[in-house]
Amino acid sequence: MGVEFEREDYQFLTELGLAPENLGCYGGGVWRANGPTVTSINPSDNEPIATVREASLEDYEDSMKACADARRMWMLTPAPKRGEIVRQIGDGLRAKLPLLGKLVSLEMGKILPEGIGEVQEFIDMCDYAVGLSRQLSGSIIPSERPNHAMMEVWNPLGIVGVITAFNFPCAVLGWNACIALVCGNCVVWKGAPTTPLVTLATTRIIAEVFERNKLPGGIFTCVCGGAEIGSAIAHDARIPLVSFTGSTKVGMLVQSIVHARHGKVLLELSGNNAIIVMDDAVLPLAIRAVLFAAVGTAGQRCTTCRRLIVHEKVYDDMLEGLLKAYKQVKVGNSVEGDTLCGPLHSKLSMSGFTEGIKK
Amino acid sequence: MGVEFEREDYQFLTELGLAPENLGCYGGGVWRANGPTVTSINPSDNEPIATVREASLEDYEDSMKACADARRMWMLTPAPKRGEIVRQIGDGLRAKLPLLGKLVSLEMGKILPEGIGEVQEFIDMCDYAVGLSRQLSGSIIPSERPNHAMMEVWNPLGIVGVITAFNFPCAVLGWNACIALVCGNCVVWKGAPTTPLVTLATTRIIAEVFERNKLPGGIFTCVCGGAEIGSAIAHDARIPLVSFTGSTKVGMLVQSIVHARHGKVLLELSGNNAIIVMDDAVLPLAIRAVLFAAVGTAGQRCTTCRRLIVHEKVYDDMLEGLLKAYKQVKVGNSVEGDTLCGPLHSKLSMSGFTEGIKK
Amino acid sequence: MGVEFEREDYQFLTELGLAPENLGCYGGGVWRANGPTVTSINPSDNEPIATVREASLEDYEDSMKACADARRMWMLTPAPKRGEIVRQIGDGLRAKLPLLGKLVSLEMGKILPEGIGEVQEFIDMCDYAVGLSRQLSGSIIPSERPNHAMMEVWNPLGIVGVITAFNFPCAVLGWNACIALVCGNCVVWKGAPTTPLVTLATTRIIAEVFERNKLPGGIFTCVCGGAEIGSAIAHDARIPLVSFTGSTKVGMLVQSIVHARHGKVLLELSGNNAIIVMDDAVLPLAIRAVLFAAVGTAGQRCTTCRRLIVHEKVYDDMLEGLLKAYKQVKVGNSVEGDTLCGPLHSKLSMSGFTEGIKK
Amino acid sequence: MGVEFEREDYQFLTELGLAPENLGCYGGGVWRANGPTVTSINPSDNEPIATVREASLEDYEDSMKACADARRMWMLTPAPKRGEIVRQIGDGLRAKLPLLGKLVSLEMGKILPEGIGEVQEFIDMCDYAVGLSRQLSGSIIPSERPNHAMMEVWNPLGIVGVITAFNFPCAVLGWNACIALVCGNCVVWKGAPTTPLVTLATTRIIAEVFERNKLPGGIFTCVCGGAEIGSAIAHDARIPLVSFTGSTKVGMLVQSIVHARHGKVLLELSGNNAIIVMDDAVLPLAIRAVLFAAVGTAGQRCTTCRRLIVHEKVYDDMLEGLLKAYKQVKVGNSVEGDTLCGPLHSKLSMSGFTEGIKK
Repeated sequence: MGVEFEREDYQFLTELGLAPENLGCYGGGVWRANGPTVTSINPSDNEPIATVREASLEDYEDSMKACADARRMWMLTPAPKRGEIVRQIGDGLRAKLPLLGKLVSLEMGKILPEGIGEVQEFIDMCDYAVGLSRQLSGSIIPSERPNHAMMEVWNPLGIVGVITAFNFPCAVLGWNACIALVCGNCVVWKGAPTTPLVTLATTRIIAEVFERNKLPGGIFTCVCGGAEIGSAIAHDARIPLVSFTGSTKVGMLVQSIVHARHGKVLLELSGNNAIIVMDDAVLPLAIRAVLFAAVGTAGQRCTTCRRLIVHEKVYDDMLEGLLKAYKQVKVGNSVEGDTLCGPLHSKLSMSGFTEGIKK
Repeated sequence: MGVEFEREDYQFLTELGLAPENLGCYGGGVWRANGPTVTSINPSDNEPIATVREASLEDYEDSMKACADARRMWMLTPAPKRGEIVRQIGDGLRAKLPLLGKLVSLEMGKILPEGIGEVQEFIDMCDYAVGLSRQLSGSIIPSERPNHAMMEVWNPLGIVGVITAFNFPCAVLGWNACIALVCGNCVVWKGAPTTPLVTLATTRIIAEVFERNKLPGGIFTCVCGGAEIGSAIAHDARIPLVSFTGSTKVGMLVQSIVHARHGKVLLELSGNNAIIVMDDAVLPLAIRAVLFAAVGTAGQRCTTCRRLIVHEKVYDDMLEGLLKAYKQVKVGNSVEGDTLCGPLHSKLSMSGFTEGIKK
Repeated sequence: MGVEFEREDYQFLTELGLAPENLGCYGGGVWRANGPTVTSINPSDNEPIATVREASLEDYEDSMKACADARRMWMLTPAPKRGEIVRQIGDGLRAKLPLLGKLVSLEMGKILPEGIGEVQEFIDMCDYAVGLSRQLSGSIIPSERPNHAMMEVWNPLGIVGVITAFNFPCAVLGWNACIALVCGNCVVWKGAPTTPLVTLATTRIIAEVFERNKLPGGIFTCVCGGAEIGSAIAHDARIPLVSFTGSTKVGMLVQSIVHARHGKVLLELSGNNAIIVMDDAVLPLAIRAVLFAAVGTAGQRCTTCRRLIVHEKVYDDMLEGLLKAYKQVKVGNSVEGDTLCGPLHSKLSMSGFTEGIKK
Repeated sequence: MGVEFEREDYQFLTELGLAPENLGCYGGGVWRANGPTVTSINPSDNEPIATVREASLEDYEDSMKACADARRMWMLTPAPKRGEIVRQIGDGLRAKLPLLGKLVSLEMGKILPEGIGEVQEFIDMCDYAVGLSRQLSGSIIPSERPNHAMMEVWNPLGIVGVITAFNFPCAVLGWNACIALVCGNCVVWKGAPTTPLVTLATTRIIAEVFERNKLPGGIFTCVCGGAEIGSAIAHDARIPLVSFTGSTKVGMLVQSIVHARHGKVLLELSGNNAIIVMDDAVLPLAIRAVLFAAVGTAGQRCTTCRRLIVHEKVYDDMLEGLLKAYKQVKVGNSVEGDTLCGPLHSKLSMSGFTEGIKK
């Protein structure tokens, strides 16, 4: 494969370990991929960035075997030593913060400060989890029986599956993986099919830490793929906990599959938030709050403000203020410095948005 | 000794186990007293209520021996069973709530609702401590050493000394004793020399519970007395923790004595609170707050408002409002229903107050 | 209806508010029932004890309306005051402990000490929950944003549905209801169809507390019934949390129904416990442990020992010891003093057991 | 001043910012010193390493003014941002781990692995404290008053004084300073008079972080000195909490001074530990444990084993085993690789030890 990007503005991707063509599965410490090839599209110009070969079900199975093999060793690693690994992951992310943040912006379409902010969230999670690694305390509880006490100790689950969505292609892994790892769990990650480059670049940073510390690569597994891989994770009895971020519809499906095999789920699903503006509101503050809540991430967050309920006494002023504020929002290429609103993530998002407006 | 009170309005005291003459030391399950005799004075009319013979140092020593003997047995009693004893103490207090509350009002001089409220606080502490008795959990902390964990368990100290003040002759024992008892500690209590009847009536309710449950009387010890007994407690190396409520001056002395023998202290000392009224204050609310804070317990609380700092813009209105409010405060006999401000507790309090005003 | 029981040994039931014929629905503070009539059978002699008219779906709906009406008021009641109500429920149970314990033994078939122990568990839960009612603390969390902090507060869910099983007809309600009530939730209870008398007697004790405190009866609702009522609870969107104790099969069904409407579940399902006896075991201790684990509640607990895995070196001794121990177990009428193993709960249990042995 | 060390084996000290002559006070971001000059002695050969000019009382006062000025700004800095500073201190220590560990070994006299281990402890504390910086949560506590809740928030004290001892010249600062800093307190440190080089080298690492982040130097203050400076800290009402590690005698004195001004103390004082060897002990394990406990840090730890109580049945075997083990302990120069027991720290330590043996 060629390793040079033709477009000059993509050459920073090589510093993240990416190439025009990439393998989309990291399992047992080995990069591989035998599934279909997908192309990552730049939502700012609808041009391809690079291609990623996704994992086949055989790749998934091979990776999961290595992951299951690594479980016992990782569970028995002292929690503070697991914390030290997570600390190094944080340092790895720090070293690549501007580059990885720019890739998040490039591939997802959110503006550059948001892309960098997302990686910073992951770094903050690492710090938090390192501290937790010395605080995962069990309890010794008084018993009503003489000379007895009860003990409650937290044990790792073994493997945590993490399925993330396109709108936070990096941070959501951080929330889940940092805690899962310090708690003694291996992690299997499936990122969104439309943000595979963020998935791979993030995985490279994490993999490098495990490799440098001579730990089994199976502790962190990454499997690029679509619904077929997601379904494999949901059905896989080796994965006692599946964390899913995405639509309510798919989340409910994942939940019922995982529960049917007595697994646990963590669900981060859709939202439909309203902001209520009362007649005694401080309007400049309210306008800025609404603007940020509605326009941030081009409205593609679960916490996006979708409805605005305004008291009639301030309706006209609020509307006028918002119109003025919206006019100042520069829409444009996500990675450009003065853009305040980037593109919608995909043609699907765009048609959904257009349909929604029509209604 | 005669057991009948001559004054009809004191006859309710017999239901609290009191008589015109009383023994002021309960140790090892036995009532005794060989010290000086003090007379409890009704601050509303400066007439005697009853006499109490205080503990001699020999009484103290005999009581402490029984207390020390009871330590091991009580420490080894399961915490939830200790909680059950505290629950029964709460029920004992509930059964005597109006009577004991009235005695608090009568002997201390605070108004009746405050006297009853003080006993209710003790009851609430019992409920709280009962719940705690199943929650005194230790920790199992992750270690960085493979196959090791650290354990941290709370052990009883053994004996907790509680020295309380005249202004809360009942509740402060409750705060200390309920927690100390469920945690597995014996309690040695010295109440204020001027409120011995509350001390004895409260002790009778507690003692009855230990007796009914056939537990050693030494678990709860009561020693009426003055500075000599207080000093004995402070110096007693069998008492690892001394809780003292009273003046800052005496508290600092207790602290230095206890620390010199490597003991621990809990100090609840003087206060000097100010209320600041800004120019945007809601005056009726501020006036009510100041009134309650300054007049409650006739100004004899550590939390009493001693200074009022008022913005010049609202100074006149505030002053006028306060004057009007103060005129409505009925000063009188503490146990009478419509009294809003009872007497100061003693002649000493009165002379201190008068001196203070002069300055 | 007649209120006298013909059998002399059932006359104690009147002290629990039961009669030969009973209404099986308590909703909005009113007893009612328009559903089918079921007969409670004494498993020790297979004779009827009394009949209970179950709730119709209309009764359920009427009761739920009252429950939903009471929600807001109960949510806004301060937690310590909710704790006081639970404390009084504990006192109500204490007053009826021997009688209610005997009814549990009579109707469920477990031996008398287990019946009484089950009620005691409920009482212990009340004490624990009262303590919790002053400890349901939220958090004020440091923010990385200057002059900001985050607040996290626990709010009531509103209504908690509790579906319990025949083998712990009283205690399991206690585990759920005590916590639900102090947390500010109304409770809707469906007991097992074969233990309706325990359900009604327990409800009477609880109802009496709400009535005495002049609180809406809707805060605690009891609905005797079968699968139809269980299904109504599972589907009812007014019930954000359903706690279910019973078979894994039914529990999984309840889970999928509740989750489909975005509700939460608490499941306490089947078990299949083994005891492993190693060659260095202290055999007398192991034998006693196995005996208690296998014979307690006639083997009808989720924690019952179902399999025994014995090291070959101690197999013969263990077997001999167990045979000897089993011979000393007196099987008989559950409420009789010297019985160590009562009857299986029902003909269905017996046929299941016989089938199991055949395999 | 000359900046080159004559002895080649001391040249690594320049990488720690040390010179043959050093200023011993860092306050308000400035190095200064006008007090007496002390010489740091290498306990392995009793030769001087370098000199340090200590702080005068004027230096102390100037430094404290800068510290007090920095208080408000640091208190108001968001806790997670304070955590980020502590994280960078940890990284600074990591970068100098072998050098600073070697200096601890050189100047204190403990063996090299112990010197490095001590710095590692500080690093671990940094990681722990960074995690804590997002967890210093206050509470929102249910109130019995309708529509009210109570809030409890942790506020910084302002300035924490840390007085450390010669035997852990680096780690003890870490335990105290990491927590104090993330909690929002400025730190004033006085190290032991005989280990000033460790004090200065550690301070340089910390100071560099504050300088790089353009934070007031007053947040971390270091004052080399003897009893005069220690006394100034104890009496200084600007320092609400003094943490003291050292002898019980001095600790008790510090405590009484600090308490007399209503301050708080943290005391880490002397120990006198015994090991009891029972007749069923695993002797090889016991011998190794006793050896490590008695010989580690040349017996100069508060946790050092000072007494050995051996069951008569194993006395002879234990003695023989210990004699054999002691013979294998290589006593020598602390920084040399195969030394297992370094020198006593000072001539004073040696005379104390010799006197002790005579008794």
